[in-house]
Amino acid sequence: MDKDLIDTAAGKAPCDLNLTNCVMVDVLGGRFIENATVSIRNGRIAGVNDGLEAKATLNLGGKFLAPGLVDAHVHVESSLLTPAEYARVVLPHGTTTVVADPHEIVNVLGYDGMRFMLSASSDLPLDFFFMVPSCVPATEFDTAGAALYASDMYPFLQDERVLGLGEVMNYPGVLAREQRLMDKIALFTSARKPVDGHAPGLRGAALSAYIVAGIGSDHECTTPAEAEEKLSKGMYIMLREGSTAKDLSHLIPAIKPASVPRFMVCSDDRHSNDLRDEGHMDHAVRLLLAGGIAPIDAFRIASANAAQWFGMKGVGAIAPGYKADFVAFSSFDAFKAEMVFKCGRLVAENGALIEDFPARQMALRDSVNIKWLTAGDFIIPDKGTSVKVIEARQDSIITGQLVEKPTVVEGTCVSDPSRDLIKIFVIDRHSGSGRIGKGFIKGLGLKRGAIGGTISHDSHNMIIAGVDDASIFKAARHLNKMKGGLVYAVGDKIILDLPLPVAGLMSDRDADFVIGRLRAFEELFEREGLTNHTPLMTLSFMALPVIPSLKITDAGLIDVDRFAPVDLYVDA
Amino acid sequence: MDKDLIDTAAGKAPCDLNLTNCVMVDVLGGRFIENATVSIRNGRIAGVNDGLEAKATLNLGGKFLAPGLVDAHVHVESSLLTPAEYARVVLPHGTTTVVADPHEIVNVLGYDGMRFMLSASSDLPLDFFFMVPSCVPATEFDTAGAALYASDMYPFLQDERVLGLGEVMNYPGVLAREQRLMDKIALFTSARKPVDGHAPGLRGAALSAYIVAGIGSDHECTTPAEAEEKLSKGMYIMLREGSTAKDLSHLIPAIKPASVPRFMVCSDDRHSNDLRDEGHMDHAVRLLLAGGIAPIDAFRIASANAAQWFGMKGVGAIAPGYKADFVAFSSFDAFKAEMVFKCGRLVAENGALIEDFPARQMALRDSVNIKWLTAGDFIIPDKGTSVKVIEARQDSIITGQLVEKPTVVEGTCVSDPSRDLIKIFVIDRHSGSGRIGKGFIKGLGLKRGAIGGTISHDSHNMIIAGVDDASIFKAARHLNKMKGGLVYAVGDKIILDLPLPVAGLMSDRDADFVIGRLRAFEELFEREGLTNHTPLMTLSFMALPVIPSLKITDAGLIDVDRFAPVDLYVDA
Repeated sequence: MDKDLIDTAAGKAPCDLNLTNCVMVDVLGGRFIENATVSIRNGRIAGVNDGLEAKATLNLGGKFLAPGLVDAHVHVESSLLTPAEYARVVLPHGTTTVVADPHEIVNVLGYDGMRFMLSASSDLPLDFFFMVPSCVPATEFDTAGAALYASDMYPFLQDERVLGLGEVMNYPGVLAREQRLMDKIALFTSARKPVDGHAPGLRGAALSAYIVAGIGSDHECTTPAEAEEKLSKGMYIMLREGSTAKDLSHLIPAIKPASVPRFMVCSDDRHSNDLRDEGHMDHAVRLLLAGGIAPIDAFRIASANAAQWFGMKGVGAIAPGYKADFVAFSSFDAFKAEMVFKCGRLVAENGALIEDFPARQMALRDSVNIKWLTAGDFIIPDKGTSVKVIEARQDSIITGQLVEKPTVVEGTCVSDPSRDLIKIFVIDRHSGSGRIGKGFIKGLGLKRGAIGGTISHDSHNMIIAGVDDASIFKAARHLNKMKGGLVYAVGDKIILDLPLPVAGLMSDRDADFVIGRLRAFEELFEREGLTNHTPLMTLSFMALPVIPSLKITDAGLIDVDRFAPVDLYVDA
Repeated sequence: MDKDLIDTAAGKAPCDLNLTNCVMVDVLGGRFIENATVSIRNGRIAGVNDGLEAKATLNLGGKFLAPGLVDAHVHVESSLLTPAEYARVVLPHGTTTVVADPHEIVNVLGYDGMRFMLSASSDLPLDFFFMVPSCVPATEFDTAGAALYASDMYPFLQDERVLGLGEVMNYPGVLAREQRLMDKIALFTSARKPVDGHAPGLRGAALSAYIVAGIGSDHECTTPAEAEEKLSKGMYIMLREGSTAKDLSHLIPAIKPASVPRFMVCSDDRHSNDLRDEGHMDHAVRLLLAGGIAPIDAFRIASANAAQWFGMKGVGAIAPGYKADFVAFSSFDAFKAEMVFKCGRLVAENGALIEDFPARQMALRDSVNIKWLTAGDFIIPDKGTSVKVIEARQDSIITGQLVEKPTVVEGTCVSDPSRDLIKIFVIDRHSGSGRIGKGFIKGLGLKRGAIGGTISHDSHNMIIAGVDDASIFKAARHLNKMKGGLVYAVGDKIILDLPLPVAGLMSDRDADFVIGRLRAFEELFEREGLTNHTPLMTLSFMALPVIPSLKITDAGLIDVDRFAPVDLYVDA
């Protein structure tokens, strides 16, 4: 209730800006308003076609004017960019609001990670709202960087940019009414805040029980039938278009005129190059339009509906009192954000920022805390038995489990590139305990040296696979020295790296640098003859013990099918 | 988060009831679900088609099953019934939830009136939610029974059945940013609670300013264009079908598939006979269907949308976790609530309650507090001038203002039925001050005796019009004796009365009694030859100084066009 805005709307004071001569995409009234004038004061809309005076006028030359786009669910960390740099990339694509679930950094830094994301994303021309990660730690199987329980979450509930509880991935925990999880859900539902879901393939009675527990949205649908059941049972559905998971187009048949209000769009995990080159929510809108969704509905799905689900006041529509966040464009046929306005300021035009903006600097402690290592730490003794081997598969985070006779040299099991049998290690990087999980992996095709990184879902310990112990040792030391990142070492030489000093997850450089390094890694791995040109991404899922079937943590191998630790050595 | 319900939904415990063999009206998914089974536990829905076991089964024989209907805005007092009796009348029509604005009783009894309504409506098989009346007192022109400011409202905000701030009628006050009104709005918007509007005909910049101040709904639209502007500017629109104001059908052209989610239905003011005989929200649904609105949309407008606007969790849809409130019926062509379920119990069938339910008894102080009167109090001295006369019009609450020479007898201005010039009085019934406003009214056609009541919007002082002072005096004394009500007296004889001892507004009897007496009044006034067969209703608006153009309060005549008190006597 801004006094100035009331007076301005009533015509008692001039507006800052009139945007004239546009076709307004009215997502609330469900129509186009021709030849509209939108009046702005203090970053908010004072009136639409109300004949208000303004200090400045911008003639939009008949362009369409739609609300700024909203990403309903994103892990910003997946871009490897800090919030400010993320904003620089997505703003020119018409996104003005994102709802971030900082699940990755909070798994590393806990409360401090959440505070960092809130601070690093404030005062930017992109509005960052947050969901508090609900599954930290993700499992009991490894050394987590942090834990966040209901009582830790309470302070964040008081922040106006914190909207609710992030995706509840542990649906067996919900059905079993695990107390710590129930406490988190209760904290948010009692505050009448939304609780996001994550329930791939969950149907029938199990789905109903999950919903009854208080979970109201889902972004994991892959078929129209799944989406329809979830809609009918009361869920909001987020249509996901990430870098790997591309579900949006498959779900279009589930979007009916009467169910449009329950759909949103989200990116979940999307890489910097895709964000920069293919787009963000503008890309999602293009897919909706290409799929035959009416333009009004497509924009509503990409704006107002998310505001409704999350209770974001004054977001997602062009109406008095709303934030003056807009995207202007010439055509629905090849929708492209030609002008982007945030709080009434033109911030991007024709795909480029109008002016740069500073990022808030905030100190963040180093997140890589490993015990002093020696090359000897990477020895895997031979016990005369076979060993379990993780079988990595191209384009899937599901692994197979194999049993193989290891290649043995002088009493130790060694990597054998000729059999594509490579040693893999997960090193506790949070508590400095020295815990190292040891195993073998097949499917990377690594011929020499070692690759490694500090991104490994969900606990983000250090993960390294390598052909020889010197390279592995070097990779580990370099990751430590960089305070996290990605690396390829051969012997004592670093072939390529990407420092990710922000929690070991995000770069402190710009998107072009990050994209350049990732591209260089791909080219390098192609030249080196790896089976998989993004082996570091493959590695990053090898420590995720909720995805079948054999995974590795700093506590050793996990048989996910049996949900239990297993020994590396297999008695014949 | 009901533990039993989670376990039941998951199939670990049996449901109480399965409703089988129905066509579910799925207002969230926007479709019909054929051959559905809805499973219920503890009054809530545990599952839909989830194959759950239940202790009992009710085969609905292929009937449609829709969510219970929701009245989004009602002054229960207009039915002259207490909440329990109101529930008895509307439940058989399929209404399971009402959002009441107890504006009338709060104008009489303030805080205690609000508490009475909350208490008297608890534990009924109809859910009463409340909006806190925003305009008490309504004006500064008369003696109000009560005042309710932001600090008085705060305690009610803590009640889970109090949803927000009631219709803000004083829109000039909003535009002028009147501090006490702004404080009320701020209290609710800061708590993220809805604020209802009331803005008949408000358009353009004034409408935008009203919306910017935080007001989000309106139930006063009379044309599609007005509704469309309000929708586009972000308002939710309540389609009103009351006893007098019948706007619903006129607004149907404004309902577009893309704007359906922003519409609700409401009754605002609806009399007991209309509720009993014509219906309640079932009647509104029939009008929507007759107007060509798709059945899914019609039911959505009458259920889920209100739940959305008001933030009523678990209301307005058939989905897991929602209240098991349903209406079952056989056809959309002649929609009729054949079975009504509240929290899983069959409460009404074929228009009749299945079993009665007790009303909670709550003591309420007498609301009629007048100074001891004598017949001499009703003398209007002649000053040799003309007098201002209120011109009452058939079927309108807008009055004209006339200037006439009074008929004078022995130095006093008297009623003159031959000229249809009748004395009218408003007597402070709240503070016992003895304040009496005196005037003349034309248009009632009263031939003898006096009519009066304690219903007179918005302050509900005692209002009496009569031909002779003895009848007027008798009417006043009888209203006092009845602790409020409606009366027709001739000389020292009471011809007919309707006691309304609950705040002078509501009966303590049943709907049939109230409807019978109102019918008897109408027949009586017809026999007596009055121009207007509902003169007591006409009278009830003569003290409302926000409706043009000449009105009367206990402080005398008010020229509404000039928004100022005026003298009865007019110098030539």
